Amino acid sequence: MRAVTIRDGEIVIAEHPDPVPGHGEVLVRVAAAGVNGADLLQVRGGYPAPAGSPPDIPGLEIAGEVVAVGPEALRFALGDRVMAVVGGGGQAELCVVHERQAMPVPAALDAVAAGGFPEAFATAHDALMTQGALSMGERVLISGAAGGVGTAAVQLAAAAGAHVTASVRHPELHDAVTGLGAAVVLDPRDTPEAGPFDVLLELVGAPNLEEHLRAMRRGGRVVVIGVGAGFKTELNLLAVMGGMLTLRGSTLRARPLEEKAAIARALEREVLPLVERGVLRVPVAASYPLADAAAAYARFAAGAKLGKIVITPGA
Amino acid sequence: MRAVTIRDGEIVIAEHPDPVPGHGEVLVRVAAAGVNGADLLQVRGGYPAPAGSPPDIPGLEIAGEVVAVGPEALRFALGDRVMAVVGGGGQAELCVVHERQAMPVPAALDAVAAGGFPEAFATAHDALMTQGALSMGERVLISGAAGGVGTAAVQLAAAAGAHVTASVRHPELHDAVTGLGAAVVLDPRDTPEAGPFDVLLELVGAPNLEEHLRAMRRGGRVVVIGVGAGFKTELNLLAVMGGMLTLRGSTLRARPLEEKAAIARALEREVLPLVERGVLRVPVAASYPLADAAAAYARFAAGAKLGKIVITPGA
Repeated sequence: MRAVTIRDGEIVIAEHPDPVPGHGEVLVRVAAAGVNGADLLQVRGGYPAPAGSPPDIPGLEIAGEVVAVGPEALRFALGDRVMAVVGGGGQAELCVVHERQAMPVPAALDAVAAGGFPEAFATAHDALMTQGALSMGERVLISGAAGGVGTAAVQLAAAAGAHVTASVRHPELHDAVTGLGAAVVLDPRDTPEAGPFDVLLELVGAPNLEEHLRAMRRGGRVVVIGVGAGFKTELNLLAVMGGMLTLRGSTLRARPLEEKAAIARALEREVLPLVERGVLRVPVAASYPLADAAAAYARFAAGAKLGKIVITPGA
Repeated sequence: MRAVTIRDGEIVIAEHPDPVPGHGEVLVRVAAAGVNGADLLQVRGGYPAPAGSPPDIPGLEIAGEVVAVGPEALRFALGDRVMAVVGGGGQAELCVVHERQAMPVPAALDAVAAGGFPEAFATAHDALMTQGALSMGERVLISGAAGGVGTAAVQLAAAAGAHVTASVRHPELHDAVTGLGAAVVLDPRDTPEAGPFDVLLELVGAPNLEEHLRAMRRGGRVVVIGVGAGFKTELNLLAVMGGMLTLRGSTLRARPLEEKAAIARALEREVLPLVERGVLRVPVAASYPLADAAAAYARFAAGAKLGKIVITPGA
């Protein structure tokens, strides 16, 4: 099979042996695979693949068709459309995934959009709902709302009955984020005045965090899952105590099978029904055939986009 | 009644009108009232009393006898021994408290020890169990383990089946903290090697926090409830993300009635039975009659003590 391959910090397309599904695994012919920040870090050498994943093939999410099932894999049949978060190796013509990590693709989702769904929605749902315990009626600030996780988070929070303030750096994307359900869309420099917030989803990192913390309501929850703009911040512990604040960090890629499987079940139960009803969608800024993977990474790194960048090995 | 009174940043004993119990409140003749860090901050002018509490009488915890009951106060009768966390005004001959905040004093606890119980055990139990979700079998680091909250926390964590590492600055107190149930007692500079920890209870503040964070296990919970040694720290968000860490801050004094009442119920259910059985005790470093309150504060500020400093208006 052919796959996006990291060679000396560069993106090339190379041949690899076809993967073989083991116990409980399915082999997926990948129609589409999203690009994520962790892939970019991995290409640049700063974020090695987790144990058990191909060290040189990036790609944390896939959608495609089941073309082989391993022993004791019972959830899917040949030809089923599936999508999944994987530990790596997704940006390839073929990928194996444990059946407990895979989800059925709703009919409402085309193959390209499905390739951009798993990581973004799993990350956003886990961060907002499981880590942040967001409830209906609460106010949430989504810092860095225009990207893949951000656009998923805005839609999920609005669908759950929360009041969404979205912080978006590029003014030309403000209207589109409003269209996803944000009640208020602001420049990052203006966000504190829009508070106080019960939940902050921080996708940008350190630069505005101190200011964002001052905009939290008593008992507020801060979930940090992106630090692209910086990771060192000064923390005022007295303010954290006085505000009864909770700050937690989270990543998806390194989670063990049981946690990724639990997240997949939560998405099947809580999120896929809303995808099926058309309430939630996957904004795809651009898609690229496998041969143009380097262009996909360049577009991802350039930013100023709404939603996902997707590579389509099946195109 | 006479009460410890803050006048121009000094401790004096002054006359005040007797308080009158309102709806749902009881009037307590105070036998003993602990001294806490928040009192010291309040005397120094940095931490005004919460709304509804006397602005000039410190004291966050009391034990004594019910001498009057307000309208619709049904939980206690005249003569009952009670103890409670209060918002302020505890270091006085008389104090009113809402009956939902009050707990019965177990027979195993004498009046002086009871006066040092509520704040320390409520704070430690809420921080370890409610905020930190400490489970049996887990490893906990208690940073600053020799004080009132620290000695309560060591005993509670050990009683709950956790493995307790206690960080204590004064070597002469190490044996006593071992006697409270700590498996390991260390100098603060040595704590990271004793990890990794599932829960960190930080009672000292910023100075060692960065180092303590590096000693946390994946998914660890950090609860900050004391910052006496400093409140500004640098936080590495990437480490928080990679470690799936949760950091939360908490204070007890400013909580509303319903939260203080919920904490009192939790103590009645989970902690008082162990006090009654003699499993948990209240180490009292020293007690002082009301007239010597200034000496009690000086002793508290000097540190290097095991457990509580208690003022005894009823002595």
